[in-house]
Amino acid sequence: MFNQSLTTNMFDLATTTEHFLIAAKKAEIRSLDYLLSSCQLVQSTTELIHELQKERGLSNSFLVSSGERFASELQAERTQTDAVLAGFLQHIRALDIERSDSFSSNVYSRIASSLHLLEALPAIRDKVDRFEVQVDANTDYYSRLMESYLAIIFETADLSTDPDITRLLVALFNLVQGKEYAGLERAWGLIGFTAGHFSTLEQERIQTFQEHQARCFGIFADVSSVKLAKAWREVECSNATQELVRLRVLIERALLKEALPSSMSEVWFATTTARIDATRQVEILVMEELLSVCCEKQRLAQQELQRHMGCLQSLSLHSETLSPRPSATFSFSIESEQDISNFAKATTLYELVNNQAKRIKAVSDELAKAKRTLEERKVIERAKGVIMVSQKVSEEVAYQQLRKAAMNKSKRLIDIAENVISVYDMVSAPSK
Amino acid sequence: MFNQSLTTNMFDLATTTEHFLIAAKKAEIRSLDYLLSSCQLVQSTTELIHELQKERGLSNSFLVSSGERFASELQAERTQTDAVLAGFLQHIRALDIERSDSFSSNVYSRIASSLHLLEALPAIRDKVDRFEVQVDANTDYYSRLMESYLAIIFETADLSTDPDITRLLVALFNLVQGKEYAGLERAWGLIGFTAGHFSTLEQERIQTFQEHQARCFGIFADVSSVKLAKAWREVECSNATQELVRLRVLIERALLKEALPSSMSEVWFATTTARIDATRQVEILVMEELLSVCCEKQRLAQQELQRHMGCLQSLSLHSETLSPRPSATFSFSIESEQDISNFAKATTLYELVNNQAKRIKAVSDELAKAKRTLEERKVIERAKGVIMVSQKVSEEVAYQQLRKAAMNKSKRLIDIAENVISVYDMVSAPSK
Repeated sequence: MFNQSLTTNMFDLATTTEHFLIAAKKAEIRSLDYLLSSCQLVQSTTELIHELQKERGLSNSFLVSSGERFASELQAERTQTDAVLAGFLQHIRALDIERSDSFSSNVYSRIASSLHLLEALPAIRDKVDRFEVQVDANTDYYSRLMESYLAIIFETADLSTDPDITRLLVALFNLVQGKEYAGLERAWGLIGFTAGHFSTLEQERIQTFQEHQARCFGIFADVSSVKLAKAWREVECSNATQELVRLRVLIERALLKEALPSSMSEVWFATTTARIDATRQVEILVMEELLSVCCEKQRLAQQELQRHMGCLQSLSLHSETLSPRPSATFSFSIESEQDISNFAKATTLYELVNNQAKRIKAVSDELAKAKRTLEERKVIERAKGVIMVSQKVSEEVAYQQLRKAAMNKSKRLIDIAENVISVYDMVSAPSK
Repeated sequence: MFNQSLTTNMFDLATTTEHFLIAAKKAEIRSLDYLLSSCQLVQSTTELIHELQKERGLSNSFLVSSGERFASELQAERTQTDAVLAGFLQHIRALDIERSDSFSSNVYSRIASSLHLLEALPAIRDKVDRFEVQVDANTDYYSRLMESYLAIIFETADLSTDPDITRLLVALFNLVQGKEYAGLERAWGLIGFTAGHFSTLEQERIQTFQEHQARCFGIFADVSSVKLAKAWREVECSNATQELVRLRVLIERALLKEALPSSMSEVWFATTTARIDATRQVEILVMEELLSVCCEKQRLAQQELQRHMGCLQSLSLHSETLSPRPSATFSFSIESEQDISNFAKATTLYELVNNQAKRIKAVSDELAKAKRTLEERKVIERAKGVIMVSQKVSEEVAYQQLRKAAMNKSKRLIDIAENVISVYDMVSAPSK
């Protein structure tokens, strides 16, 4: 009953197995190439965000002081923004969009959106110069710009399939997002201090930005390396942060009837800016680590491919000249808990395949862990969306509802968000 | 203070925006091409799984009956398996692994693993013919093979970025996985019926396979279209299923001391096989829907790209000959809840960008929803892994622990699994 046709196929099967082992390594190298260009795009993006945040801060100060303050600083910052923007445009125009392993459709769409928003920049600058725009509309425009650039970073992090790089991208995304909330706190705080008072609504809004910051920076500290976490702790212990804590108390306790001295606005701006600039320095450290990890991984993968091919070649020679090709036995377990040994040490095809299988498992687990905060963010965003649509409320109100529900039930925000979505999925008919 | 250098950049900005809108569409078409070849690979894989399941069933029956039964059926099935295998090999050998937009590293690794396991097939067939292999070792070998093919389907579903196709792939994956648990139930039930009795351990194992089946088929029915869900209900209402329910009760109530009539083994085999074959018919329906959805999406995306390019061209002509190019205003909202209108209707660049942005949001939400069961499966697998390693128990015991905890606390399995992982992540130092 032994089947002859399959037996004659066996040598071919082994060749095909080798073929796909090599294919897997090559695909890994391609995805690392992709990650490296992603990281370079992310780097350009964070630079641009930083300048636009500064420009937002300065133009707000210029507006609220009726042009008395920061006029020259604003002009200088615009020139600086334009220089960084020119670099950003040069970078993205050099991307080869016809290459099939280039960015995803979403990344390109996000770039298109952000560019389109950018087209309005000269008009808004013009309006600022003529005092034809309110400070909140000005803040709103820059914040939308920032959101669109943050979306580029998020899409990039979401597509990474390497756990270490994903972890760094998640760290970076949270740092940049936290920094943006710090920028918003600066902007709205400045408006209040310059006006000399804060309404309850303004106080609540600023508090929300503080909470978002704490959450983002918390995730950053959790997922980043010892070196980066230390750099962040230094920001948290800096004079600027200590001064900020005092100023925050001032905002919290400010009553509508008591006017604050308007000179406080300059102190507020200087303090928040010092802290944001320090955060930017940490951002640069993350980018450096990201690029060096990317390059190192690429180097190792290339090396492994060479070793891999050499190993397969010697296996092949061995089996042809000395002894029969080592063939698989049906009793081995590809899921055993043995250490992942080096491919160089593998002496049989069996070992090569096994090492690869164990590697996938280890990498998938690590990747799932690294992506958790990204997934959680998506769940919270989706839950907010559900509340916004079903109850016709703003994003801020939706977030506050989730937060209050979590506090009342002593649960995590993510658990409440999960519940909201479960219920929604249950009551809404699936789109078929 | 108006900045001249940025203003002169504006025309270029709009051109760059258009460039990236086109890039996004082209990237979408490329990812649909990828999905189509994925679906074809998945189709080949499900065919091979089906034949190997049959061969496992028949060789087990042949073994437990000491060669008295199913000898000719087994021989015929092996020929059939080899024919399907030849087609599968032809399919994967034709894949262009050097193309940069081909499959991911994981898919290739999974293929290599499965091929390598396959190399042992002639040896195991030989051992079956000589009665040199135990029925449980035989079952184990085929089950590992099946696992390796299921992994290919899972990796493919995990990489899809289209919500409709993801939903179908998730449906298919759960159907195939459920069918494999049905195959395992058939195999282990057959061993018991042929021996004439079931140990408590065997009863529990079979019950676990029944529970896994129910979970997988439940997810399948939840996520699939009305037509597919109806086809599945017909399987659930078939005579074979009703007969199976009676036989399951027999196994559940069987006591070690009372021997069951060994003729029951043939009834069991016929009944479970009829149900599995009916499930295979549903599988074929899913594949048909999957391929037709893929082709239709590709056609639409191509059409949209043409329209898109035509639209941009006319916008460009319009702005050059008749009036200034419509430029963005800083007050619009790209997140409004308006319907996603057709790109053909868009008359300004602003509308094109907006439509694209809304589309990403809608697609991301749908994709997140479609991927939920995949993510949940990964979480449950990870939680099982944590329990297996930390308590040094088998996969089956780990699963039972999760299930019992869920029942005791009246929670969903996924919530318990989430908790296990949270605690584990908390106590284990992050790998930095």
